[in-house]
Amino acid sequence: MYQNIVFKGVGTYHPATKTSNSYYIKHFKSMGIDVSGLIEHLGRNTRCIADAKNENAVTMAYQASLKALLTSNVQPEEIDIIIFGTDSPEKLIPSNALLLHDRLNTVNAHQIFDLNSNCIGMLSAIDVASRLLQSNTRLNKALVVGSFLGSFISSKSDPVCYSNMADAAAAVILERVEEPYKRGFIDTNFKTDPVVKDAFQFPACGFSKLYDNETDMEDKKLRLDPFDTSFICKEWVDLMQVLFERCNISKYNIKQFFFSQFSKPDAETTLDLMSVGLDKYTYIGNKYGYTGLTSPIIAYNEALINKSIDYGDYVVFCTVGAGYNICALLYRL
Amino acid sequence: MYQNIVFKGVGTYHPATKTSNSYYIKHFKSMGIDVSGLIEHLGRNTRCIADAKNENAVTMAYQASLKALLTSNVQPEEIDIIIFGTDSPEKLIPSNALLLHDRLNTVNAHQIFDLNSNCIGMLSAIDVASRLLQSNTRLNKALVVGSFLGSFISSKSDPVCYSNMADAAAAVILERVEEPYKRGFIDTNFKTDPVVKDAFQFPACGFSKLYDNETDMEDKKLRLDPFDTSFICKEWVDLMQVLFERCNISKYNIKQFFFSQFSKPDAETTLDLMSVGLDKYTYIGNKYGYTGLTSPIIAYNEALINKSIDYGDYVVFCTVGAGYNICALLYRL
Repeated sequence: MYQNIVFKGVGTYHPATKTSNSYYIKHFKSMGIDVSGLIEHLGRNTRCIADAKNENAVTMAYQASLKALLTSNVQPEEIDIIIFGTDSPEKLIPSNALLLHDRLNTVNAHQIFDLNSNCIGMLSAIDVASRLLQSNTRLNKALVVGSFLGSFISSKSDPVCYSNMADAAAAVILERVEEPYKRGFIDTNFKTDPVVKDAFQFPACGFSKLYDNETDMEDKKLRLDPFDTSFICKEWVDLMQVLFERCNISKYNIKQFFFSQFSKPDAETTLDLMSVGLDKYTYIGNKYGYTGLTSPIIAYNEALINKSIDYGDYVVFCTVGAGYNICALLYRL
Repeated sequence: MYQNIVFKGVGTYHPATKTSNSYYIKHFKSMGIDVSGLIEHLGRNTRCIADAKNENAVTMAYQASLKALLTSNVQPEEIDIIIFGTDSPEKLIPSNALLLHDRLNTVNAHQIFDLNSNCIGMLSAIDVASRLLQSNTRLNKALVVGSFLGSFISSKSDPVCYSNMADAAAAVILERVEEPYKRGFIDTNFKTDPVVKDAFQFPACGFSKLYDNETDMEDKKLRLDPFDTSFICKEWVDLMQVLFERCNISKYNIKQFFFSQFSKPDAETTLDLMSVGLDKYTYIGNKYGYTGLTSPIIAYNEALINKSIDYGDYVVFCTVGAGYNICALLYRL
C-alpha cells in the first residue's frame, strides 16, 4: 500500500469587477504608451480586479478556502496544517495564515505559516505540505492557499505590471490516503538562479526605505525593469526532463501541462521545444489576467471543470518566480 | 541506522550599536511615560540596534549565515535548501531567501523560500527543513535563517515594543547524517489559537491601507494593544508535556530549555510550574533585547559558547508568536 498525498478538492476566487484590454490601452495611451501589442502578445482579454476598500489577501484566500472545503466535503476542524502563500500579504504580524485560521475556524490546524517564493509559491507550498504529511503521520489534511493582489501592488504607470496583473486566490485541500498504487503528489524539481534579482522588486525601495519621507510613492510599489522572459522556455524543458527521468515517465504520458499564466507564447514555445501538442495545456490568462502564484492552480481547476483531465491522469505544474526560481511538480489524479 | 537531521553549526549576528535601559527611560519620560518598571520586569539591560541606513533583514541574515557556514565547515555550494524566516522582510518580491542566495553564492540551493510564522518562525522553519530532508534523500543540507528588525518596525511612541525589541539574525545549518542512534531533530508540538489576533499587528493598517494618504504614519507600523502574556506559561507546560509523552522522555532529562526571550518571568514561571530548576534555562534577553524569532536560537548559541550543553544532551526550544501560536521542539545534540 502507498501513503498518497492527494488533492481532495480545489477552490478559486476571482473578484467581481472585470476590466478589459480597452481600459488599459486607453489608460496608457493618455501617457503616450501603446500597450496594445504587449497585452495581445501575452494573451490577455479580461481580468478580475479586487475592491481595494473591502478586499485583501486574507479575504480572497478565505473565499477560495471555503470553496475548496466545500468541493472536498471537508469540515474546517479536519484541517491540520495551513500554508498561506503570498507576496502581497495583508499583514506581516500576525501571519495571514493565522488570520485565515481565525476566519475559517480551523480549530485543529496548529501548524500554520505563510510561505513566500513569489510566483512559484503555491507549488512550493504544495511540496512542503505533501512532505509534512508524508513525514508526520499524526497530521492528515493540509490547506494550501495562495492569494495575489497584482492590481494593488502595481504602479498605475507601469505598463507591463498594471496592464497584465490581476487579483485572485486559489486553495487546495491535501489529504494523506492509503491506496494500492502510487498517485497524488509524485515529486518536484526546483531551480534557483538569482541572475534577474533586480528586475522585479516590491517594495522597490525595500522596507528599510518604505517609511522615509524622501522615498517617492512610485518607488514604494512594484518595479519591473522589463527583460526578455523567453529564456525560461528552455529552462522549463530541462527542469521537466529531469523530473520525468527521476519519475520514470514520458512527457507523452502527461495529460495536461499547467504553466505560469503570464505569457501564452512562453507556454506554447515550451511545448513546441518538447514536441508536445498545444492541446496538452490549459490557458486561462486571457480570462483572469496574470494572477501570480495562483495561476497554475486556477488553470488546473479550469481543466477539472472542462473535464480535460480525469482520475488516473498525470499532470505537470510548471512555473517561474521573480529573481528567478522555477518549479515543476508532477501529480497524478 | 538512523537518518538523523542534526545542527551542523549555528551563527548569530548582532548589530554594533548598543542601547541601554537609560536611553528608553529618558525617551519615554519626555512623553510622560515611565517604562523603568516594565523593562526591569521583563529582564532588559542592553540591546543591539541595526543601522537603519545600511542594514536590513537580508544584510543581517547574510552575516549570521556566513558565521553558521564557518562554524559548520560547510561551503555555500553544499547547501540544498534555504528557508528564510522573518516578519520584517526587506522585500516581498523577490523573496529574501533569493536575495540571500545571491549574496552567499549558494549555487546549488534550488529549493528556497521565506517563511513567516512570526516569533515561532525559526522553530517552524527548522521543523519544515528537517522534514524536507527526511522525506527527500536527494537533499542533504539546509540553511535556516531568521532575521528580525524589531527596532525598525516599532513606533517610537510604543512603550512596550520600542523599549524591548531589538535587532538580530540567527542561522542554523542542518544536515542529514546516518548514525547508529537517534539524535538531532526529534519532534515538535504546535498549538494555534487566534484569540489575540488583534493585539499585535504590522502594518497596523494592513497593506491594503498602507499607501493611503489618509493613513497615519503611526498606523503603518507595529501596533501592540498590551495584554497579560502570563497565560502562556500554562500553555507552554501543556505543550511540552504532550511532546515529552510522545517522545517518551522526562522533563528532568532536558539539559537546557530555550524559551522566547521576551519575558524572563514567563520563562521562570513555566519552569516553576514544571518543578524544573532555574539553572536549566538560558536567558540572553538582558544582553540582546527581544529579538523575535531569532531569540531561542541565540539562547542556544549562548549555551554552546558557555558549554552548558554538550553532545548527547536533550534540549527544548519553546516559544510564542503573535496571534497566538506556540511551538515546542525537542532536539538532541
